[in-house]
Amino acid sequence: MKIKPIGIIHTPFKCKKDTPIQPFRSNTIGKVEVFKEYQDGLNDIDGFSHIILLYKFHKSKGYSLKVKPFLDSEKRGLFATRAPRRPNQLGLSIVRLLIREDNVLFVEGIDVIDGTPLIDIKPYAPCFEPKEEIRIGWLEGKVK
Amino acid sequence: MKIKPIGIIHTPFKCKKDTPIQPFRSNTIGKVEVFKEYQDGLNDIDGFSHIILLYKFHKSKGYSLKVKPFLDSEKRGLFATRAPRRPNQLGLSIVRLLIREDNVLFVEGIDVIDGTPLIDIKPYAPCFEPKEEIRIGWLEGKVK
Repeated sequence: MKIKPIGIIHTPFKCKKDTPIQPFRSNTIGKVEVFKEYQDGLNDIDGFSHIILLYKFHKSKGYSLKVKPFLDSEKRGLFATRAPRRPNQLGLSIVRLLIREDNVLFVEGIDVIDGTPLIDIKPYAPCFEPKEEIRIGWLEGKVK
Repeated sequence: MKIKPIGIIHTPFKCKKDTPIQPFRSNTIGKVEVFKEYQDGLNDIDGFSHIILLYKFHKSKGYSLKVKPFLDSEKRGLFATRAPRRPNQLGLSIVRLLIREDNVLFVEGIDVIDGTPLIDIKPYAPCFEPKEEIRIGWLEGKVK
C-alpha cells in the first residue's frame, strides 16, 4: 500500500536528539505546510483548538519489537510504546492550532524533526476519547 | 512511501452502512489479529485499558476536499472531519482493550469494516492529551 506526503512539518529540531520526549512537554512552535493542492481541505479547521497530525518518521530505519522507552529502564513491547522505529514508522501528535494562513498551520507543542512528511490531519475532539477509567500500564507513575 | 498491514481487524460490520458513526458510540466487540511475526511487540500492552488503532480505509477510493459530515448539514474542509475518503485513507480509533490472547487483541468500541488492514497500534494515555481548553469547531453542540 502506498502513502504520499500531503505536506511538510517545519520545526526548530534539526535532529532526533533535539526533540522533546512527547508533545505534552513541548511548547515549541512549528509550521505545518500543507501542499497547495490540499489547501481547500483545511477549511473549518481553525474552529478546532487542537488537531491530530499523522506523519512519517522519515529518519527512522527498521524496527525492534522490544524497546527501552526513554521514560523506563525495562524493555517493553513496541506497540506498548510510541517509539519511532516501528513497522510502518508512522507517528501521531496532538498539537494546539494557533493560526491558519492559507495552506500553512502554525501549531504549538510540536516534537518532530524539521522536514517531517505530513500524512494526515484530523480534528481533535474529546468526544472521541474514552470516558471510562483509564489504565496506562508501564507508564503509570512515570508521567504526570 | 510504502506501508504494509501488520494485521487484520475483524468486526461484525460487513459494509460501511453497518458501521457506527464514531467509536465513542459503539460498544461493539472486535478482534484485532496481529500477524505472528509482530506478536512480541504486543508485550506489556495489556497494562493499558485503551489503545489507538491506525488502519487503512481499504474500501474507500479517492477523496474530496469538501465533505458533508454525517453529523452536519454543511460541507466542511476534509481535514476538519474524520471522513474515510482522504488522500492517504488512514483511520484512527481509540478502543478499549479487553483481553490479549497471544497475537489477538479483543477490543470494545470498534467501528471499522470487517477485514480492515491494521497499520499500527499505540498505547493510549491521557498524559499525551492536551490539558488546555478545547474548542471543537463545527462539532460544537452536535456531540456530547
